[in-house]
Amino acid sequence: MSTPHSSLLTDHYELTMVSAALRDGTADRQCVFEVFTRRLPTGRRYGVVAGTARLVELVRDFRFDDAELAWLREAGVVDEQTAAWLSRFRFTGDIEGYAEGELFFPGSPILTVSGTFAECVLLETLALSVLNHDCAIAAAAARMVTAARGRTVIEMGSRRAHEEAAVAAARSAYLAGFGFTSNLAAGQRYGIPTAGTAAHAFTLLHDDESAAFASQVAAQGKGTTLLVDTYDIAQGIRNAIAVAGPDLRAIRIDSGDLSVLAHHSRELLDSLGATETKIIVSGDLDEYAIAALAAEPVDMYGAGTAVVTGSGAPTAGLVYKLVEVDGRPVVKRSENKATVGGRKVAIRRHKPTGTATEEIVVSQGVPDHRPNDRLLQRSYLVGGEPVELPGLVESREHLRQCLISIPWEGLKLSAGDPTIPVTVVPTN
Amino acid sequence: MSTPHSSLLTDHYELTMVSAALRDGTADRQCVFEVFTRRLPTGRRYGVVAGTARLVELVRDFRFDDAELAWLREAGVVDEQTAAWLSRFRFTGDIEGYAEGELFFPGSPILTVSGTFAECVLLETLALSVLNHDCAIAAAAARMVTAARGRTVIEMGSRRAHEEAAVAAARSAYLAGFGFTSNLAAGQRYGIPTAGTAAHAFTLLHDDESAAFASQVAAQGKGTTLLVDTYDIAQGIRNAIAVAGPDLRAIRIDSGDLSVLAHHSRELLDSLGATETKIIVSGDLDEYAIAALAAEPVDMYGAGTAVVTGSGAPTAGLVYKLVEVDGRPVVKRSENKATVGGRKVAIRRHKPTGTATEEIVVSQGVPDHRPNDRLLQRSYLVGGEPVELPGLVESREHLRQCLISIPWEGLKLSAGDPTIPVTVVPTN
Repeated sequence: MSTPHSSLLTDHYELTMVSAALRDGTADRQCVFEVFTRRLPTGRRYGVVAGTARLVELVRDFRFDDAELAWLREAGVVDEQTAAWLSRFRFTGDIEGYAEGELFFPGSPILTVSGTFAECVLLETLALSVLNHDCAIAAAAARMVTAARGRTVIEMGSRRAHEEAAVAAARSAYLAGFGFTSNLAAGQRYGIPTAGTAAHAFTLLHDDESAAFASQVAAQGKGTTLLVDTYDIAQGIRNAIAVAGPDLRAIRIDSGDLSVLAHHSRELLDSLGATETKIIVSGDLDEYAIAALAAEPVDMYGAGTAVVTGSGAPTAGLVYKLVEVDGRPVVKRSENKATVGGRKVAIRRHKPTGTATEEIVVSQGVPDHRPNDRLLQRSYLVGGEPVELPGLVESREHLRQCLISIPWEGLKLSAGDPTIPVTVVPTN
Repeated sequence: MSTPHSSLLTDHYELTMVSAALRDGTADRQCVFEVFTRRLPTGRRYGVVAGTARLVELVRDFRFDDAELAWLREAGVVDEQTAAWLSRFRFTGDIEGYAEGELFFPGSPILTVSGTFAECVLLETLALSVLNHDCAIAAAAARMVTAARGRTVIEMGSRRAHEEAAVAAARSAYLAGFGFTSNLAAGQRYGIPTAGTAAHAFTLLHDDESAAFASQVAAQGKGTTLLVDTYDIAQGIRNAIAVAGPDLRAIRIDSGDLSVLAHHSRELLDSLGATETKIIVSGDLDEYAIAALAAEPVDMYGAGTAVVTGSGAPTAGLVYKLVEVDGRPVVKRSENKATVGGRKVAIRRHKPTGTATEEIVVSQGVPDHRPNDRLLQRSYLVGGEPVELPGLVESREHLRQCLISIPWEGLKLSAGDPTIPVTVVPTN
């Protein structure tokens, strides 16, 4: 497999802008870029920050090698002066932002990149690619976790997403509270617990279902999960318990009316003495389907397509905008987008009970401090050097606490407004 | 950046199935797996095969290194016997399938993987990840190209997709007929023409718009595209022509009512003598928005979010199913999914005029030959060795010809049925 650097995961125009700015002397102007969204996906009540730690690694390794520089020159993307500059490039600015697992709303400055124009503009596409993808998945996953009401959800959607996006999706889903992923690369890279036992193909491979189950139990023990819906589910359950005994850890059902099937399966398992055998259901589950199974005797959910595609919102709508040049706020003015220039400081305000009430975002200033305020930005890179970050498990716990802190309407799956308002205070 | 092999871009259960099959002696059974879809995304009239050449490279490099094997053992995913087997693994089977750029419909066997159970089952997730993603993008992109009616479309959606998915999306969009991509990695890896000039940030960086335009023209010449909507569009156009002269190649408008703005901009450009200056529009364009601009004086479209997210269908719904074991057709029977077992041969039937009429897919046999039939499957790997494939430009032309060959209703953007039927003929 080729070893792509992160440096060409970039739009052509970033390099032509750098090229022109190097010629005219503006390349070194001190700039601040911010990442935020103007709106959440339709009906969503919150966004979830995810991917920033991934981005930090990609920024750290953002270098141009000889082959890339040669290609950039041959393709006419950059001139010699720019190529020479790129050959020495490393990001030496600062990156601050919301913690992974933090909630965000329209106007929240979830990432702030400061440094020279040239070094900051180069990161636009990469920063947005990582955050737009990872935040989209995390928000969908968080809704599924809420819908599951404490039951474990397993991410098994790799096959429905680009092979590398799948790894990042598994990371976002775990951050959002999923218990396991099927994706092995996510296990190796991020330490996420992986899970998986067998597909229908394994049953079809064998001479009959009982032979497949016997093979699986011989290899994996009774702690495995037997997939019982290749032929007839009731017979499948009988075969499973006949082969594994009533200590079988779990069965999985991947098709059909899961509500009815979960009931019948529970009754049948109980009648066979397998009262502790768990029922795992999967098959096109999204947050609504999970919620609809709340009253059924289901122990675990497997979610695939819906989580890795953001359940209708596959990208988070984040933009990367220049807000400050040499200390002066700047803003595109041709539209009514209510964008405010200047570097922002953001806090979330809470009631004494801990319930969040609003977010205050102040341009080129600091919000007045009140009790129960929480500063939302932390440092990610200082002078190009990564700062030590919380682990994925801590970020996961942070999100859990954030979701507890928002008004209860915020956890509803139905369409609604952002659960708390963001007030952006312009520069005086 | 870490150098992931493709081997862990795989679901946990594939390795546990291999492990159990190695123990019980079924791992070497000769199997055939097929990739197909049961339905197209709602309302879509065709699917487009894309990504197969990318998959072939990943399969060729599908190896487990020492670190991966150590992790798999430590994490308890596989036992020693399986780890030893994996350490020697390389795919030695055959892969056939539809050509890239070929159309497909529900039931079309777009990929056929044959070999031992163990070697074929390992490829399930990787094959589906690549094809589900790339086919989804290609189908959306093809609809945009149709809507553009011969005008050039530029892919600029990298920032809305996972950073590596963006590169694959650019490839699929080019295959589907897009003229350019903004993504530099796609340019380097696949030879796709890249394009880009400047963002709003470049204008905001400078003391005024004219200074920004002058810098850009100095660096890139009059063949550049000036982005005129940072402040006031009419003034932006006047500034652009004042700086570059009437030979300016193009302006770009990225916001507002593009229909009205295109008209006003054309009139203004003409009045300034810039009658040859092109108008490029961008900003949340999907196939419907592009179609709605057909009568406007637009020369080029920039498409972003919609194309990289499959315009509402971010994954193609393809599945990877075991259809044959040791020459015997197999099929999961618990559902009414009308899946037919056995290795399939597929042809497309045409009228003497060249219009496609239907697809015939025969299990364990060969369709009777008629004039104007076309065999749809070609070889990708033989005994694990890749076969030489057409280049991306040839695949692009193939799709163009395929779209000419389908009944005219197939090109409508409105919701409809698959444009030709697929008849799957079971084993006798």
